Amino acid sequence: MTTPRCRARDIAPAELFGTTPPGPLNAITDVTGVRVAHTTLIEDSPRGAVRTGVTAVLPNAGDVFMDRMLGGGYVLNGAGEVAGFTQLVEWGLLESPILLTNTLSMGTCADAVVGSLLDRYPSIGREHDVVIPVVGECDDSWLNDIGGRHIKEAHVHAAIDAAVTGPVEEGNVGGGTGMITCDFKGGIGTSSRVVSEKAGGYTVGVLVMSNFGVMEELRFCGLPIGKHLSPSVPNEYRRQENYGSIITVIATDAPLMPVQICRLAKRAGMGIARVGSHAAHGSGEIIVGFSTANTIHRQHTGLTYQMTVLLEHHINALYQATIEATEEAILNALCMADDMTGLNDRTVKGLPLDQTQDLIARMVRL
Amino acid sequence: MTTPRCRARDIAPAELFGTTPPGPLNAITDVTGVRVAHTTLIEDSPRGAVRTGVTAVLPNAGDVFMDRMLGGGYVLNGAGEVAGFTQLVEWGLLESPILLTNTLSMGTCADAVVGSLLDRYPSIGREHDVVIPVVGECDDSWLNDIGGRHIKEAHVHAAIDAAVTGPVEEGNVGGGTGMITCDFKGGIGTSSRVVSEKAGGYTVGVLVMSNFGVMEELRFCGLPIGKHLSPSVPNEYRRQENYGSIITVIATDAPLMPVQICRLAKRAGMGIARVGSHAAHGSGEIIVGFSTANTIHRQHTGLTYQMTVLLEHHINALYQATIEATEEAILNALCMADDMTGLNDRTVKGLPLDQTQDLIARMVRL
Amino acid sequence: MTTPRCRARDIAPAELFGTTPPGPLNAITDVTGVRVAHTTLIEDSPRGAVRTGVTAVLPNAGDVFMDRMLGGGYVLNGAGEVAGFTQLVEWGLLESPILLTNTLSMGTCADAVVGSLLDRYPSIGREHDVVIPVVGECDDSWLNDIGGRHIKEAHVHAAIDAAVTGPVEEGNVGGGTGMITCDFKGGIGTSSRVVSEKAGGYTVGVLVMSNFGVMEELRFCGLPIGKHLSPSVPNEYRRQENYGSIITVIATDAPLMPVQICRLAKRAGMGIARVGSHAAHGSGEIIVGFSTANTIHRQHTGLTYQMTVLLEHHINALYQATIEATEEAILNALCMADDMTGLNDRTVKGLPLDQTQDLIARMVRL
Amino acid sequence: MTTPRCRARDIAPAELFGTTPPGPLNAITDVTGVRVAHTTLIEDSPRGAVRTGVTAVLPNAGDVFMDRMLGGGYVLNGAGEVAGFTQLVEWGLLESPILLTNTLSMGTCADAVVGSLLDRYPSIGREHDVVIPVVGECDDSWLNDIGGRHIKEAHVHAAIDAAVTGPVEEGNVGGGTGMITCDFKGGIGTSSRVVSEKAGGYTVGVLVMSNFGVMEELRFCGLPIGKHLSPSVPNEYRRQENYGSIITVIATDAPLMPVQICRLAKRAGMGIARVGSHAAHGSGEIIVGFSTANTIHRQHTGLTYQMTVLLEHHINALYQATIEATEEAILNALCMADDMTGLNDRTVKGLPLDQTQDLIARMVRL
Repeated sequence: MTTPRCRARDIAPAELFGTTPPGPLNAITDVTGVRVAHTTLIEDSPRGAVRTGVTAVLPNAGDVFMDRMLGGGYVLNGAGEVAGFTQLVEWGLLESPILLTNTLSMGTCADAVVGSLLDRYPSIGREHDVVIPVVGECDDSWLNDIGGRHIKEAHVHAAIDAAVTGPVEEGNVGGGTGMITCDFKGGIGTSSRVVSEKAGGYTVGVLVMSNFGVMEELRFCGLPIGKHLSPSVPNEYRRQENYGSIITVIATDAPLMPVQICRLAKRAGMGIARVGSHAAHGSGEIIVGFSTANTIHRQHTGLTYQMTVLLEHHINALYQATIEATEEAILNALCMADDMTGLNDRTVKGLPLDQTQDLIARMVRL
Repeated sequence: MTTPRCRARDIAPAELFGTTPPGPLNAITDVTGVRVAHTTLIEDSPRGAVRTGVTAVLPNAGDVFMDRMLGGGYVLNGAGEVAGFTQLVEWGLLESPILLTNTLSMGTCADAVVGSLLDRYPSIGREHDVVIPVVGECDDSWLNDIGGRHIKEAHVHAAIDAAVTGPVEEGNVGGGTGMITCDFKGGIGTSSRVVSEKAGGYTVGVLVMSNFGVMEELRFCGLPIGKHLSPSVPNEYRRQENYGSIITVIATDAPLMPVQICRLAKRAGMGIARVGSHAAHGSGEIIVGFSTANTIHRQHTGLTYQMTVLLEHHINALYQATIEATEEAILNALCMADDMTGLNDRTVKGLPLDQTQDLIARMVRL
Repeated sequence: MTTPRCRARDIAPAELFGTTPPGPLNAITDVTGVRVAHTTLIEDSPRGAVRTGVTAVLPNAGDVFMDRMLGGGYVLNGAGEVAGFTQLVEWGLLESPILLTNTLSMGTCADAVVGSLLDRYPSIGREHDVVIPVVGECDDSWLNDIGGRHIKEAHVHAAIDAAVTGPVEEGNVGGGTGMITCDFKGGIGTSSRVVSEKAGGYTVGVLVMSNFGVMEELRFCGLPIGKHLSPSVPNEYRRQENYGSIITVIATDAPLMPVQICRLAKRAGMGIARVGSHAAHGSGEIIVGFSTANTIHRQHTGLTYQMTVLLEHHINALYQATIEATEEAILNALCMADDMTGLNDRTVKGLPLDQTQDLIARMVRL
Repeated sequence: MTTPRCRARDIAPAELFGTTPPGPLNAITDVTGVRVAHTTLIEDSPRGAVRTGVTAVLPNAGDVFMDRMLGGGYVLNGAGEVAGFTQLVEWGLLESPILLTNTLSMGTCADAVVGSLLDRYPSIGREHDVVIPVVGECDDSWLNDIGGRHIKEAHVHAAIDAAVTGPVEEGNVGGGTGMITCDFKGGIGTSSRVVSEKAGGYTVGVLVMSNFGVMEELRFCGLPIGKHLSPSVPNEYRRQENYGSIITVIATDAPLMPVQICRLAKRAGMGIARVGSHAAHGSGEIIVGFSTANTIHRQHTGLTYQMTVLLEHHINALYQATIEATEEAILNALCMADDMTGLNDRTVKGLPLDQTQDLIARMVRL
């Protein structure tokens, strides 16, 4: 594939992507304060090809350990792990950056976040506060020597330190470097939506590490593209079984309580469904979300605080936004990820953009 | 609309409905023993038009109170109610027929099931066994005088007593009589799938009482049909706000444990997502499921029993089957439900079949 | 038993009841605005003795349908039913009075609440809002002709209409009329706690309809009273099997979000555990809770509202308060419920107060 | 404290510990096949005192990665973490040993389990199976230099390799080395129960890493011991705030389905409640359980398997057993843990055995 990669909107008419417009970057970083960076490892090792990495999502412009956000989450299928998920949902509070990496590097990654926080706050574990990092994983073992556990603490620190607002790299980067989606190369994708002024003008941003599915089920904005592409993709380019996962991060500046964020997280699962996932037995469809609208300071000395909350029946616009942004984030991962050759000389092809564009054009030309 | 109604497969190519073939009836009754009947009320009352009813799903050929089934469920959005859901999920056991009706008749309906069981088993509540009926509801108040509470015990008994195997009436019948889906007339729909012999040859049947959504979001096998139909449907034919719900019943003869049935139930939510639902704030997307493979007799005198269980990694075929059958069941409700005029002379139009068929044909003709 | 009944504190030293003091009434009505009333049916019928009733808890001084409260709940064991629970937890909102009655009258009771609301708001179901009542049940079939379904709509309306602040009747009243606890007569009990000024000075009130357990396991403030009383209670006075349930209602004026109320509800389960319940298979330990601190008006026209929220790490005092109040509410039900003879001439004895008082005195005299 | 430590039954009459007798060892290892070992670190480091360790619970006599067990779990309060919990509950399958350690060593510990499995099964991550280890944590930072992350892979391997059936060391060992319970020294404790032959003769074993609570709330078999001991314990011996957690492992040979194991796990929470926990905001009360009765082989080639399942209404004896064993396991941790001086020269006292024995004797002498 020598054609340069592009995003999903570059190969399909805008109206296919739903009724809610994207933000300026069409990325999770459209939510003010959210920062992202990747550490990408594409190299060889004596054990085999290394195709993996780490992606860091920092939920606000400050330091989330001190300036905590309300949060929540949802498990669509739990054959996977997001460390820290239990506490996030119990408290409805996010107090850790969010890291995404491969399954067998989750321990290292959690450890590195702890180390990074200890460097900044040596009093952690002395004045009794410990921290449970939020780290999501997918299995990239088809292309990556996952057993080599090539992610080291420094890689994690690098991603955290580099996190910036602005455009987000997609495709074969960070935690998504070795990931596969519907038998095409997947990885990191992102998208956003801005709801109408009447609905509050809020932004919803989604970032996925996408690694699920089989080709025949792939739907592009609903259109059964996978079925049409499948005959021309030789079996050797496909992952042997339907495993893999998708970890989804939702950010919003809408003023939501934890119960509302959990409900939003469920809608990400609906977006995943629309792309063709059946949330396979061996797949981890785990979603974490947070709202930047209210900050719960760690050192707040009062008894109560004032919180701005969206009246619950206005949440529908955000639901629609979340579904659309999740769907498009996955499609962006697919469109932006180029061919990748990895472990055991296996190759996974990028989504054929010209052919896909052509199919879409013919299906919506009425 | 004078064209006779037909099912979804009659207006779209079979390959759009997924990779798993339907059973002989393409109905929940393809699962051996499952029986269905409706009581339909279409009449006038001094308070206004009555457009409601009751649908009964009897989960096996015997008496489910004595011959209990393993069961489970899932709440995608909980702005609704399935009485008995808590116990179903706690025990993983279904011991009641499943009834579907309108929101304000749920009490009457539960009461009627109790009455019906008391007639048959006068010892209920004497030798300490009471029963908690399983009754799901949707809000049909756009077309039906729901406050009139027109469902009486006799209507419920009639549905239970009439339940039969064989083809299932769809559209404006039973609990679905006054229901609306994506601003078209909805109601009862059903579908089934038979997985490959390699996957066990099991059948999954789904029946929905479908009452959710807005027209713009309607996807027919993924195709954005709603967006194309919407401009030609005057606003007067649409429900004022996006409320309503969908109750889904899943039956299967696959030998599943409760934890597996609950997982299956989640996949029905993924099918609902694919038709265009965002599981609106005011909507109740509640799913109940059961497996007919193992019977847990109420009067079993032993300590343990032998259960046949599907090895967990073989469940993917059933997931795909459930998603596909749920999607098609909703589309069947839409296709089979004719125009309905009801309360306050409001009319809701049936899905325009010719126009839809034409749109689909043009979208998939490549 | 000719000794007049008294409350638990009248027979045991105050320090046994925990570290948090009760409110002025030691009742759920210590939470400002909360109102309670009972309809009690103790009569004969051709089918057998009627020993049942309805208890209504109105969560605020206004009309909860319009002036909604934040709410939540928890299921410790789900072999029971609280209608409306799914929506309460989904939305984190309580918009219905809470009714408690016997298992087979739940339908009637839900229906009656709907009727009562329709009378006041004829527009329900016309301008699309329907309501799902919150109705909890326990099985009183040992003493009551439950199959006779003696609760009628008028009984429910009477309880709702009579609800007042002030002292709450306990023991053999309302929904608790026929209930049994640890083989002694149980029923309705209530208690409250006021946390320290440092912790906000908030009140937590608990009301239970208590109907669980076996005598040997009964602990009175931890003391193994049941084991000592058991030898002197003939078997004929005991319920045949360990079924029954306990429904718990928690009210607080602490400013809690739904996620926090759900957490509080879990602590009620811990109080139940301390009295000796093992949350038996056939028992429904279901807890609903609400906070009166923030009102979410149904007709709020804005997009957002300001909510006062307790900083999450200050919640421990409320946890302790909830456990203590739940434990004492159950003990109050036990202490206040007199002997009851009912169906089939069965008698259940009230807790022997003198003997219990004597046992406690000897156990804590050090 | 020069008196040798002893177990809870050595200082209190047997009848206080409930109605179900313990197994021969009164330990989790009474469940056939279950193996336990500890690595204990009590040493000094330049950063401060090291008082921590790792405890390994191997769920069967074989290799749980290949010979998988049905499992489940429950979160009473989620301010903590058990890595692998999400998958355990999703699948109802346990395929990893269970490790217990301090909060900031969870990453290392998970990593070490992966390494250990990779050594044995180099094909992990090559033929696509990855593994998510089950690792629970509590915060031992009051006595231990937790930020020093002194647990290394070798410590974890040592614990796994040493795991044996037979008596289990309790108190200041393994993961419990630095843990505190109700302001006394806590740590590892275990207990078991054998239900009657009529109930199947099954064994339930519980092991806890106990690290929660405040002294005033401590109840010993219900008796308010903490209140009596508290005045004589100077404040300097108490942890500054009520944080900490308790991780509970339940093993049983009763043939339970996952839904039943999850229900059992909830009962462990009831046992925790009885000892005086209020499941504090900052505490992680997480329970994992498994049944050894059915083995689900990883390389099973069939489609289904035959499973023996306990008829659901026979589960009450196991509930009672679980509550009792959990309560006693915590008391064993308290009784067996000697005084410990650690970080910053802080000392935490062991439960004063003579004084406690004397108090109990006086309270139950009637």
